[in-house]
Amino acid sequence: MAWNTNLRWRLPLTCLLLQVIMVILFGVFLRYDPDADAHWIEERLGRNISSDMDNEFYYRYPSFQDVHVMIFVGFGFLMTFLQRYGFSAVGFNFLLAAFGIQWALLMQGWLHSFHGGYIVLGVENLINADFCVGSVCVAFGAVLGKVSPVQLLIMTLFQVTLFSVNEFILLNLLEVKDAGGSMTIHTFGAYFGLTVTWILYRPNLYQSKERQSSVYHSDLFAMIGTLFLWMYWPSFNSAVSDHGDAQHRAAINTYCSLAACVLTSVALSSALHKKGKLDMVHIQNATLAGGVAVGTAAEMMLMPYGSLIVGFICGIISTLGFVYLTPFLESRLRIQDTCGIHNLHGMPGIIGGIVGAVTAASANTQQYGQKGLAHAFDIDATKTTWTASMQGSFQAAGLFVSLAMALVGGLIVGVILKLPFWGQPADENCFEDAVYWEIPEDQKSLVSRSEDPTLRPTEP
Amino acid sequence: MAWNTNLRWRLPLTCLLLQVIMVILFGVFLRYDPDADAHWIEERLGRNISSDMDNEFYYRYPSFQDVHVMIFVGFGFLMTFLQRYGFSAVGFNFLLAAFGIQWALLMQGWLHSFHGGYIVLGVENLINADFCVGSVCVAFGAVLGKVSPVQLLIMTLFQVTLFSVNEFILLNLLEVKDAGGSMTIHTFGAYFGLTVTWILYRPNLYQSKERQSSVYHSDLFAMIGTLFLWMYWPSFNSAVSDHGDAQHRAAINTYCSLAACVLTSVALSSALHKKGKLDMVHIQNATLAGGVAVGTAAEMMLMPYGSLIVGFICGIISTLGFVYLTPFLESRLRIQDTCGIHNLHGMPGIIGGIVGAVTAASANTQQYGQKGLAHAFDIDATKTTWTASMQGSFQAAGLFVSLAMALVGGLIVGVILKLPFWGQPADENCFEDAVYWEIPEDQKSLVSRSEDPTLRPTEP
Amino acid sequence: MAWNTNLRWRLPLTCLLLQVIMVILFGVFLRYDPDADAHWIEERLGRNISSDMDNEFYYRYPSFQDVHVMIFVGFGFLMTFLQRYGFSAVGFNFLLAAFGIQWALLMQGWLHSFHGGYIVLGVENLINADFCVGSVCVAFGAVLGKVSPVQLLIMTLFQVTLFSVNEFILLNLLEVKDAGGSMTIHTFGAYFGLTVTWILYRPNLYQSKERQSSVYHSDLFAMIGTLFLWMYWPSFNSAVSDHGDAQHRAAINTYCSLAACVLTSVALSSALHKKGKLDMVHIQNATLAGGVAVGTAAEMMLMPYGSLIVGFICGIISTLGFVYLTPFLESRLRIQDTCGIHNLHGMPGIIGGIVGAVTAASANTQQYGQKGLAHAFDIDATKTTWTASMQGSFQAAGLFVSLAMALVGGLIVGVILKLPFWGQPADENCFEDAVYWEIPEDQKSLVSRSEDPTLRPTEP
Repeated sequence: MAWNTNLRWRLPLTCLLLQVIMVILFGVFLRYDPDADAHWIEERLGRNISSDMDNEFYYRYPSFQDVHVMIFVGFGFLMTFLQRYGFSAVGFNFLLAAFGIQWALLMQGWLHSFHGGYIVLGVENLINADFCVGSVCVAFGAVLGKVSPVQLLIMTLFQVTLFSVNEFILLNLLEVKDAGGSMTIHTFGAYFGLTVTWILYRPNLYQSKERQSSVYHSDLFAMIGTLFLWMYWPSFNSAVSDHGDAQHRAAINTYCSLAACVLTSVALSSALHKKGKLDMVHIQNATLAGGVAVGTAAEMMLMPYGSLIVGFICGIISTLGFVYLTPFLESRLRIQDTCGIHNLHGMPGIIGGIVGAVTAASANTQQYGQKGLAHAFDIDATKTTWTASMQGSFQAAGLFVSLAMALVGGLIVGVILKLPFWGQPADENCFEDAVYWEIPEDQKSLVSRSEDPTLRPTEP
Repeated sequence: MAWNTNLRWRLPLTCLLLQVIMVILFGVFLRYDPDADAHWIEERLGRNISSDMDNEFYYRYPSFQDVHVMIFVGFGFLMTFLQRYGFSAVGFNFLLAAFGIQWALLMQGWLHSFHGGYIVLGVENLINADFCVGSVCVAFGAVLGKVSPVQLLIMTLFQVTLFSVNEFILLNLLEVKDAGGSMTIHTFGAYFGLTVTWILYRPNLYQSKERQSSVYHSDLFAMIGTLFLWMYWPSFNSAVSDHGDAQHRAAINTYCSLAACVLTSVALSSALHKKGKLDMVHIQNATLAGGVAVGTAAEMMLMPYGSLIVGFICGIISTLGFVYLTPFLESRLRIQDTCGIHNLHGMPGIIGGIVGAVTAASANTQQYGQKGLAHAFDIDATKTTWTASMQGSFQAAGLFVSLAMALVGGLIVGVILKLPFWGQPADENCFEDAVYWEIPEDQKSLVSRSEDPTLRPTEP
Repeated sequence: MAWNTNLRWRLPLTCLLLQVIMVILFGVFLRYDPDADAHWIEERLGRNISSDMDNEFYYRYPSFQDVHVMIFVGFGFLMTFLQRYGFSAVGFNFLLAAFGIQWALLMQGWLHSFHGGYIVLGVENLINADFCVGSVCVAFGAVLGKVSPVQLLIMTLFQVTLFSVNEFILLNLLEVKDAGGSMTIHTFGAYFGLTVTWILYRPNLYQSKERQSSVYHSDLFAMIGTLFLWMYWPSFNSAVSDHGDAQHRAAINTYCSLAACVLTSVALSSALHKKGKLDMVHIQNATLAGGVAVGTAAEMMLMPYGSLIVGFICGIISTLGFVYLTPFLESRLRIQDTCGIHNLHGMPGIIGGIVGAVTAASANTQQYGQKGLAHAFDIDATKTTWTASMQGSFQAAGLFVSLAMALVGGLIVGVILKLPFWGQPADENCFEDAVYWEIPEDQKSLVSRSEDPTLRPTEP
């Protein structure tokens, strides 16, 4: 079937409407955190803080900027691997993230930073908003090339909402630890996205098959994304951990896990090719699985060798997933997962949840010290019954809640996105920038078959 | 007319001469700031500083590195969008910035950090030097593709000088606040560059028209520049703000403004295309206007919704500028603005100056607290007559001074650059790397018409 | 001669074996540093530390991330300049660095951080591991395009080992200062790599000559590497310096040196071309020599003008090296140095060692202050006989030790890598991604001569 992909009214109106709503809600609800408010100089004296350095800004800002790069350059460029979809990969990721962070500031603010009728805004909120949007970027990977920017904005609206509710259940009700978001970001984002793409199944997607691959330079652009994700992942997993040793430890564990993951990804990529050649898809994606899988446990006493083992396993599983599972999901389960997010975020996210549960369940005072254990798991006077195994059980429960929220949420949002008036491309025009972008001359002539695919007849 | 573009003597001699002068002046004038001098360990004890952390380095260095990336990768790659001018965009930007930061350390040092016969050098000077060069990078955008590297070095020499004088007038004489440089960097840089390109008007530039556009991959390279500018802009606007809440607040406001700006840029880009398609030029540029326009007010109590409104408006105005104003300026006013800096830096810079004036004029003790207000606007015992509206007037005066300096300075420098012996390219060889660069074989054969454009007859 | 380049068993087994060994050794030896251990909260109280900010993490982490970017994106993309070797440049650099940092944590840990039977791991170890791998990345530049990934892993294994021993001799036995690694990283890495490539001399490399050059976009990718190296070099040279003024000063000196280096590189590049055109190779490489050459002295009282002079000289020498010395080394000494590391790391590294020795030898209490001098050169009560000239002599001795270790080590490792079963490419298949990578269709058809070079007959 052929949809109308001319977005001249739908996209501008959606953007402007959403942005106007944001302005109004920001005006009503958002104020500055005491650490970012001009009254801070008085606050400081009152709280007897000796140095400006103790402003939260200096604890978090460098990590925030690294996370920011991951969301916009990391995810954006990672998805430029398709030969004719680079503008959309970077551009739509930019659009949805720019909207998503605003909506996330509100949603997460209401649930976590609501004081005296106002949401108070500091650097940690910015990081958490970026995190929340990270889960949308993950889901975008599943539907990449097959949806319109209007659909992406709507998906972002709903997914940010559901993310925030799920995060609230996990962190506040179940009191789960998940600093790097193996469960809240990756598991939730991946299975949400997979469910959406399952609902949006396109039986004739083979008609766009010739564009669903990379060209030489598009693979190099994608490596920019991969490397910035890989390098800054220690910041991602440590960005909102407790000050001091927890942030420090989270960065170290992530560094170790990611290093191990590269070697096993390369090993499997070569071993699974009949001539032993490496596949760029694996190097671009599976090498990152180690970062996903230590998300929950990175701030715990996982130990450096524990991190290596996690990375070791995930590099293998993720590469196996690309080779065997993705084709299976597409042919048997009708799940068309463009970027293979199931291998990079889905399975490693679940592993991360499990690793977190096990690590928490085996926490003890010998490893952490009395004070250290209390600090790491926020055990205060009210939690007299806290035990490590209980924490482990709640962690596991958090994983199941995330999966359930993702599946139910993805189902609902998928059905909404299936409505025929969002400007989605026809099956034979997927993975094609020219549908939504003014394209330079060189490509128009190079790819003669599609001067303007929006004008082509439905069946070739 | 045909100029000699062989720079074999002119470019090396210019570079070496300037660099020798820098060495001599650095030797005579530059010393380390107490925080960067080996005597600091004694200084610390004397000043009773309890922690190494209170060294200025730790307050500013992460922001400095972000700003550094913006100047070299951000501006450099943003300008690679032209199909045959990537080497020059990145390379000349690299050259002029490397010279400019040295000269800026001296000029700004004499005016702001001159103590006991010496300029004392610390991390804040490095940031300010990068800022100063930022205004040259802005102006470079107007003349991109039409000038030689010798012209750029000369422009940098003069522009850095004028920038520093203008900055001194604003910050020291008018006591204006302009942490993110809406006025000193963007307004000044843009109108300076526009005046220069007006003087350098090329009536036959249409002869290079076929190269004044992008190709598919050059647009992706440009997006690297866009995103690094966009992501690190919160650091740009907060880098030299007061420690603590001011830095914190400036980052938050910039983050908000930029997010809103993306949505309205996308909205307008789509709405102004007859088929609703997005234009990469808008996504690469207009999305950044929000960062420019909160430059002055970011550290003030602008409020998050205030930032959103600023970004909202600037995304619209900037995109409209690209569609309607740039062609008008070129055809009617003979202002050939290659990158459309009027839309990205000119108008948003003026808006930023106005927003800053209004925000300052409405500052009050309820918003800031007594101490906070005094701290934010440097009101000490000597300023007994300070009022917010007075501050607002001075802010407005600063904007006019910046505009006047830019126009007069641009006029003079433009006339100097118009002299015929700087190695500028002929009208039909503009936007062409091969004039100044040894080019790989692939491009030579691909673009058959210009194996070596420097050898071509003047009229084709 | 034709080797078997099918790595299906060799590469996976090498990776998995090395990674399993890493897991075991990490399990036996690696624990967290007190600043990264959950006991830190108790430690803090015991050591009477007033703020979480005094955790080592906050002093070093931003610099660590910058260094991390240099190793993976900087070196990785710098080497993508070859037209058909981008996947390998980025991918193999990724692989060897991911293995190298693990092995470096162990080797350097045993020699520097071994306490009570365990290596304790903190953020400074991560930086040092990255530094160590930096020297492998340097050596990789010499053999780029001519070795298999298995050879690279073996080279990494040995080079990291030798690096750590050499570093131990310099820093612990000779008590040399070398914060930015002019000697330990650059001199050692470069002459090690040059010796290896000398042993691996390929007489028929001219058969791959047509691929040993760049294409237009590959040069732009390489500029990404160049700029990230250039911008973050101040972090590299200051990352492990003493807290406070030393870090501050090292960053300033490096900033100055690099700026000067750009101007003289451009000057020489233009002057040495018969039409005065610039050569991308020089802009990509020689502009960085200034960072190498202030590696040792950056944290000393080199003075800003001293830094400029160092950068000034190195830009000239490095560019001259590319034009005259590299061809000479190849034709006369049979040293095939793909990236010209002798010009970027070799000569500037030696200059850096000499500059460091001279700067140290001229240190005095007037420049540093009594306490400052003692602090800068770790002069404690046990070192009653310390004199500046003695320090200078030891610095010079360190340079010779590094050179000797590099030559002897390179000789041994070169002989090992010359064994015929590592999967190295034939002389006519060098600089070719298709040997080890699954390549997208576009390149296969574009370069018709090599659909699969591994299948081609040995002699064309």
